[in-house]
Amino acid sequence: MNIAIIGATGYGGAELLRFLRNHPHVRRCYLYSSSQEGIHLSESFAHVGEIDDAILKKIDVEQIADECEVVFFATPPGVSSTLAPAFIDQGAKVIDLSGDFRLKDGAVYEAWYKRQASSDHYLQQAVYGLTEWNKPNIRKARLLSNPGCYPTATLLGLAPIVKEQLIEEDSIIVDAKSGVSGAGRKASLNTHFSEVNENVKIYKVNSHQHIPEIEQMLQAWNERIQPITFSTHLIPMTRGIMATIYAKAKHPLSVDRLVDLYKTSYKDSMFVRIRKPGQFPSTKEVYGSNYCDIGVAYDERTGRITVVSVIDNLVKGAAGQAIQNLNVMMGWNEESGLTYMPIYP
Amino acid sequence: MNIAIIGATGYGGAELLRFLRNHPHVRRCYLYSSSQEGIHLSESFAHVGEIDDAILKKIDVEQIADECEVVFFATPPGVSSTLAPAFIDQGAKVIDLSGDFRLKDGAVYEAWYKRQASSDHYLQQAVYGLTEWNKPNIRKARLLSNPGCYPTATLLGLAPIVKEQLIEEDSIIVDAKSGVSGAGRKASLNTHFSEVNENVKIYKVNSHQHIPEIEQMLQAWNERIQPITFSTHLIPMTRGIMATIYAKAKHPLSVDRLVDLYKTSYKDSMFVRIRKPGQFPSTKEVYGSNYCDIGVAYDERTGRITVVSVIDNLVKGAAGQAIQNLNVMMGWNEESGLTYMPIYP
Amino acid sequence: MNIAIIGATGYGGAELLRFLRNHPHVRRCYLYSSSQEGIHLSESFAHVGEIDDAILKKIDVEQIADECEVVFFATPPGVSSTLAPAFIDQGAKVIDLSGDFRLKDGAVYEAWYKRQASSDHYLQQAVYGLTEWNKPNIRKARLLSNPGCYPTATLLGLAPIVKEQLIEEDSIIVDAKSGVSGAGRKASLNTHFSEVNENVKIYKVNSHQHIPEIEQMLQAWNERIQPITFSTHLIPMTRGIMATIYAKAKHPLSVDRLVDLYKTSYKDSMFVRIRKPGQFPSTKEVYGSNYCDIGVAYDERTGRITVVSVIDNLVKGAAGQAIQNLNVMMGWNEESGLTYMPIYP
Amino acid sequence: MNIAIIGATGYGGAELLRFLRNHPHVRRCYLYSSSQEGIHLSESFAHVGEIDDAILKKIDVEQIADECEVVFFATPPGVSSTLAPAFIDQGAKVIDLSGDFRLKDGAVYEAWYKRQASSDHYLQQAVYGLTEWNKPNIRKARLLSNPGCYPTATLLGLAPIVKEQLIEEDSIIVDAKSGVSGAGRKASLNTHFSEVNENVKIYKVNSHQHIPEIEQMLQAWNERIQPITFSTHLIPMTRGIMATIYAKAKHPLSVDRLVDLYKTSYKDSMFVRIRKPGQFPSTKEVYGSNYCDIGVAYDERTGRITVVSVIDNLVKGAAGQAIQNLNVMMGWNEESGLTYMPIYP
Repeated sequence: MNIAIIGATGYGGAELLRFLRNHPHVRRCYLYSSSQEGIHLSESFAHVGEIDDAILKKIDVEQIADECEVVFFATPPGVSSTLAPAFIDQGAKVIDLSGDFRLKDGAVYEAWYKRQASSDHYLQQAVYGLTEWNKPNIRKARLLSNPGCYPTATLLGLAPIVKEQLIEEDSIIVDAKSGVSGAGRKASLNTHFSEVNENVKIYKVNSHQHIPEIEQMLQAWNERIQPITFSTHLIPMTRGIMATIYAKAKHPLSVDRLVDLYKTSYKDSMFVRIRKPGQFPSTKEVYGSNYCDIGVAYDERTGRITVVSVIDNLVKGAAGQAIQNLNVMMGWNEESGLTYMPIYP
Repeated sequence: MNIAIIGATGYGGAELLRFLRNHPHVRRCYLYSSSQEGIHLSESFAHVGEIDDAILKKIDVEQIADECEVVFFATPPGVSSTLAPAFIDQGAKVIDLSGDFRLKDGAVYEAWYKRQASSDHYLQQAVYGLTEWNKPNIRKARLLSNPGCYPTATLLGLAPIVKEQLIEEDSIIVDAKSGVSGAGRKASLNTHFSEVNENVKIYKVNSHQHIPEIEQMLQAWNERIQPITFSTHLIPMTRGIMATIYAKAKHPLSVDRLVDLYKTSYKDSMFVRIRKPGQFPSTKEVYGSNYCDIGVAYDERTGRITVVSVIDNLVKGAAGQAIQNLNVMMGWNEESGLTYMPIYP
Repeated sequence: MNIAIIGATGYGGAELLRFLRNHPHVRRCYLYSSSQEGIHLSESFAHVGEIDDAILKKIDVEQIADECEVVFFATPPGVSSTLAPAFIDQGAKVIDLSGDFRLKDGAVYEAWYKRQASSDHYLQQAVYGLTEWNKPNIRKARLLSNPGCYPTATLLGLAPIVKEQLIEEDSIIVDAKSGVSGAGRKASLNTHFSEVNENVKIYKVNSHQHIPEIEQMLQAWNERIQPITFSTHLIPMTRGIMATIYAKAKHPLSVDRLVDLYKTSYKDSMFVRIRKPGQFPSTKEVYGSNYCDIGVAYDERTGRITVVSVIDNLVKGAAGQAIQNLNVMMGWNEESGLTYMPIYP
Repeated sequence: MNIAIIGATGYGGAELLRFLRNHPHVRRCYLYSSSQEGIHLSESFAHVGEIDDAILKKIDVEQIADECEVVFFATPPGVSSTLAPAFIDQGAKVIDLSGDFRLKDGAVYEAWYKRQASSDHYLQQAVYGLTEWNKPNIRKARLLSNPGCYPTATLLGLAPIVKEQLIEEDSIIVDAKSGVSGAGRKASLNTHFSEVNENVKIYKVNSHQHIPEIEQMLQAWNERIQPITFSTHLIPMTRGIMATIYAKAKHPLSVDRLVDLYKTSYKDSMFVRIRKPGQFPSTKEVYGSNYCDIGVAYDERTGRITVVSVIDNLVKGAAGQAIQNLNVMMGWNEESGLTYMPIYP
């Protein structure tokens, strides 16, 4: 099968290529870029070298739809909402790594993203690709909206206790920490090495566009869930997200019971690994891989649950989950092309 | 005046020396080490060079008490609880940077520190040196217990809203992030570069020994405060602590009112700087300085307050605040020896 | 085929496992540790998770030689020189990642390593595994001595101009920079995060044990080569080596001619990538992969050649090249199990 | 005395302010910016806080020359060459941190900087401020050209052996490593955190504009010195430069004799610290301070000298040396305002 990657010169595009070139069911990846059309990929990304060095092609919907069965968008906000519909109408399947199709309600999108939403027709059609919890719909998807990096770590961490209604519905606080690659490849003072190194910054306090995405899913699981508090911090590292999640238990619990619940919830999910009681994952333990590792605690003094959920923001939080969704959409083994162990140290 | 520093080969000791050598009221610093007695300081810390290169002396209580008016302990747990009483009995003043005298209740100390507490006589005598909120007692102190790094950032961030009773007493959650120097200079796998770099780790979940220290002070301010949730994360940087603090407001608020409260609370505190509404400090903005910078937010969606409090863990969180306390104890200008701008970038 | 890894709890061992678990010709990896026998690997390396979680077994030569065709040593100095001979005598093939068998002259080993050399019988038998330049011998090897990380980057960078006799034989200076993982996993003050971060250190000036290894190979290629100057620097990053190599050209040259020479020299070497004139590789461009990327310059003002050679010290500088050698020894495709693109960023 | 800082929103400007605000002879610093005129400094640099929060003023030559005795330029290339002459003509003294007045020969400037040189009149008038070696001229300077960061580390490292004619004149190779702050505060892909972190890059191979600056000084000391090889590497840290310098000794030497020579050469230089034989400085050992630390080695195998010279690129490599020059120009104590110990760790 042939694949198209639109937006090949960003970090998401580079990661898609890293995994897809070794994918057993993918024959060729065609690369497209609106900003850098005509150059060799290696002029933008020297690490790909000659072997993977293709010329970045101009985006031509008909030709792409003709050559490729699936089109990945790894583009900035606002691109796929404009371009993806044409591909779908031509019969191609689309997997969108941007946030353009994640929110069902266009008005909510516009309030948080401060830009125009895509048409409601396609918003409703889009399937939210949190793979572990939405496989029946993903199998049938033609327009797959890949979850954001923070929502992936947060939702996988919260799903078992929200679905089992173990927590007070208004008690969820998520303190998230992310590596800088989540900000993409565009240079700015906020990602300037000398400003970020040896520094922790909080940003978009109470206003991050991933908040409604998380709440939409939580409320689909449990309609009584109230607005959450969600904070994002920039950490002086390139990759990795840790979501430290706090919630008040409705009733006294034990950590053993919590670990059991998580192990059961994810027993068929090869990419979610649950730590033993008393053990917690660090971001480096999933570096470069598609794993989401989770540890849980229960504090008898406060009656609060703490969930620690880590992913590589560019893999399970972007390209890796997108390929996992591709595998589900195509009926392939869910692990195809993703059997990489984390790179450590 | 002459000063003794016991534990000069740790990071706290090095920072004390950095500030005290330029302190206008300090004539000489004598350095002591039990583990490295007899060597030149520059053999342990090459950065001090020849100018500050003293021989590390053996600890001799009588001689030290004779030569020095004030004795700083920058020692691992368990040292000052044993040694400090002798100095006090000899008439010297003691400023202890370790946790040995921070908790009034020896049983609580033993439960959280897993080691024997100092005698109750000295525990009761010790004055807790959170400078901004305890000056009347600090002025009279003979045994000054310098606050922990996390408690300093947390308590300065919480004081105004706890004292004003603006928050639900059982709603405090502190998500703290620290640079690695907080772990001291002793090598271990947990502080091994290749394990810590490009990594975020959570540690001592619900069991950090700074929890009772924070709660003791909060309850002294407002006896209805309930146990807090407090998490600590290791960040791949050397210096800096950010405490991101969450609490539920009892009544609807506005960020402007919060900022006003904080500005008023700290109007006489030259080392606490309050950010404008919508602005938050990052750890690098206080690097190497004695400042604690604070930003606050109020989220109408959730009714929660977020307080972001940052310090340099080795300065305001250790040596700097210790010198600030020295200044108060001696009746000097509170800023003496501490008028350093943060080093940026 | 089954493989044994002795020393599975170090970084070299972890990398061997990362590659070998996806290797098409390897059925099982058995893991051995003398220091941590009996524990699960995940107790030492949480990133491996359950899938790769084997119990670390006790080293039993007969049993290992019975079950495994090839034994990898990823052990500290002095281990394989003692243990490897028994395996060879039992008919197993040995690939040694340590320095124990790299020097042909035991007296030279003892002078630079300050420890006892292995017996001359095995030193002579050992084949030096700089894959690109020694395949005929590697194919027949029973005891394969895998090159050091610095020698790999340096020798691949120097080979074309040394073999072609383009440079003054007494003019070679190598200024090498390495990430901290090269120091292994044992904690020490030299690898303590707070000492290494935001720091560049030079170490083992004129006395690094890789110097005789490099000179031995250079002189095998060109017996007139004189002693080299070789400096090693510790860089605040985890992985990566850059060797910046300086040498005086015997005759005026051009960069185009140099690039041509390098491209020709490595035209059959899929893991060596030569940059265009005016372009130079950075260490991140080979991160996690088995590539050695090389850029060259010629300065008309000074008549000097500059060669910049980068590798991932744990891959091409250790585990990756070891597997590349395994592939050659077994007659498999040289790329088997190593077709990973660098992970970027 | 009052001071003007032109270019206060760059890193050089921020460092000037850090030191000058505590300088015993400086009353006020007025800040100027062409790009950000009218804003408060704290809007650009939050770390300065309210205490130092001045409004950035428009550049008005007459008014500045009227209020300020000395004008510092901490500006990008091309600014001071245009603006400085007017200040000098008005009777102000100028200290220029940019490269505009460092080269005596305008044609050389234009060849290496690829931009127009300042007028020869001012180029000849400018005094090169390598403080340790040019005090007689600095005392009389009206236009002081502050050395580049790399030249400072390199020249202080080379001076003794070049002046004593101990080395072959065509044998100098300098391999320099720098933190990222040397690239200034302007965001670009080359300083984007995700591209620089966990990475070593070489840049401007054989073409760095500091090459002619170094050679000009070396040849003034010893006219037989030939063109040097000089390479610059970007290191994943914010501050610090290490210059590793190689040169061939004309005659056999010993490290003791070399250390003696260096100690003697710098016996009156409080900011240059020479390490003992066998010891070498790391960049962190001068962090935030005006020190240049130097270690030397002699290798009997090769007859080469290795000099390791480290500075903080923003202090001794920029703002600190500029203030040291101010002190000399004004006849003050050379250490005034610069008595900071390095901040460690």
